[in-house]
Amino acid sequence: MEKGNVVEATTRSSMRHGDEEIEGNTNILRIVETFLRLFPIGLCVTALVIMLKNSQENEYGTLDYTDLSAFRYLVHANGICAGYSLFSAVIIALPRPSTMPRAWTFFVLDQLLTYIILAAGALSMEVLYLTEKGDPPAAWSSACGYFGPFCHKATASIAITFVAVICYVVLSLISSYKLFSKYDAPAPPMSNSNNNNKGIDIAPFHG
Amino acid sequence: MEKGNVVEATTRSSMRHGDEEIEGNTNILRIVETFLRLFPIGLCVTALVIMLKNSQENEYGTLDYTDLSAFRYLVHANGICAGYSLFSAVIIALPRPSTMPRAWTFFVLDQLLTYIILAAGALSMEVLYLTEKGDPPAAWSSACGYFGPFCHKATASIAITFVAVICYVVLSLISSYKLFSKYDAPAPPMSNSNNNNKGIDIAPFHG
Repeated sequence: MEKGNVVEATTRSSMRHGDEEIEGNTNILRIVETFLRLFPIGLCVTALVIMLKNSQENEYGTLDYTDLSAFRYLVHANGICAGYSLFSAVIIALPRPSTMPRAWTFFVLDQLLTYIILAAGALSMEVLYLTEKGDPPAAWSSACGYFGPFCHKATASIAITFVAVICYVVLSLISSYKLFSKYDAPAPPMSNSNNNNKGIDIAPFHG
Repeated sequence: MEKGNVVEATTRSSMRHGDEEIEGNTNILRIVETFLRLFPIGLCVTALVIMLKNSQENEYGTLDYTDLSAFRYLVHANGICAGYSLFSAVIIALPRPSTMPRAWTFFVLDQLLTYIILAAGALSMEVLYLTEKGDPPAAWSSACGYFGPFCHKATASIAITFVAVICYVVLSLISSYKLFSKYDAPAPPMSNSNNNNKGIDIAPFHG
């Protein structure tokens, strides 16, 4: 009986310690996640504004970001990401317990947004490379010789987008951790609570 | 004592059932994963071969896949993915227990390969769009009018690459599940095994 009680007390105390540690980690994770969701708002809005104002007119003609489909897509992707970041930061900042549907929604949306913003960055970089170097076999001339400032602004916008991509890669890592660390875990606590209620507490008193 | 034993037997039996179920799920997951790793080998090699043979010469000139940086990158990305898929399928098919460093390696590599192949598909699609439509403000002419078969082969190669992208998205989902379902889980089984060895087995006999 005594040994049983000591073991029980030790187990309970170690469980309490474990709970506190998990709670502490969860709080740190929530702060990191909130920051990682707020930071891309600034990045995406900056990248968006730089690209929106990217237009140049000179004696050779006019070049506007809307002339290149990749840059139009970049603006849209940055807009969507800024909106989603704001929305998700508000939801995450509220200290409510994370439910399964909520974890799944964040996981799916984070992955999707990562792919959208990565694709936008990648194809804009390719188009920037083509405006810089041209492609003689396809009869595409370099445009950056005549439209230098246009290319500089586009480079800045794309570079900022890639910083947002890094944030989103880390965010999708966090949201997959938050989702999948819930899986497989339910099985052991169930048999554990059975043992606690019936195995330890009942056996010594009714035995 | 009796009630304790009955509860203990029930708990053990339900745990055995749970273990069998988890083992069955693990086997199904391994089969699905092996298939999803073997399938992209065929896809990536097909996309690679189509693009490698993509060259056209006519009265307007010669257009080869090497003339467009995006298509060169697509060939490299497909080659890397085919090699990685073969290597990882062999490792996964072996029924060895998944260790933590192995789960981390697969998780990181799967995510990385997904981003590489997605970026390759996205920027090749953009270049294909430009060869199809051209971009008058940037003085880029459409090339598909003169090089129809070149564009058709490029379209086929990019479409196959996107099927491989879907496989990789699912694979990175599986590898994050396999990695993160190990996290947070260690805490309950430890206190559970304490209960089994000391709480249930020792308390009734020494109490």
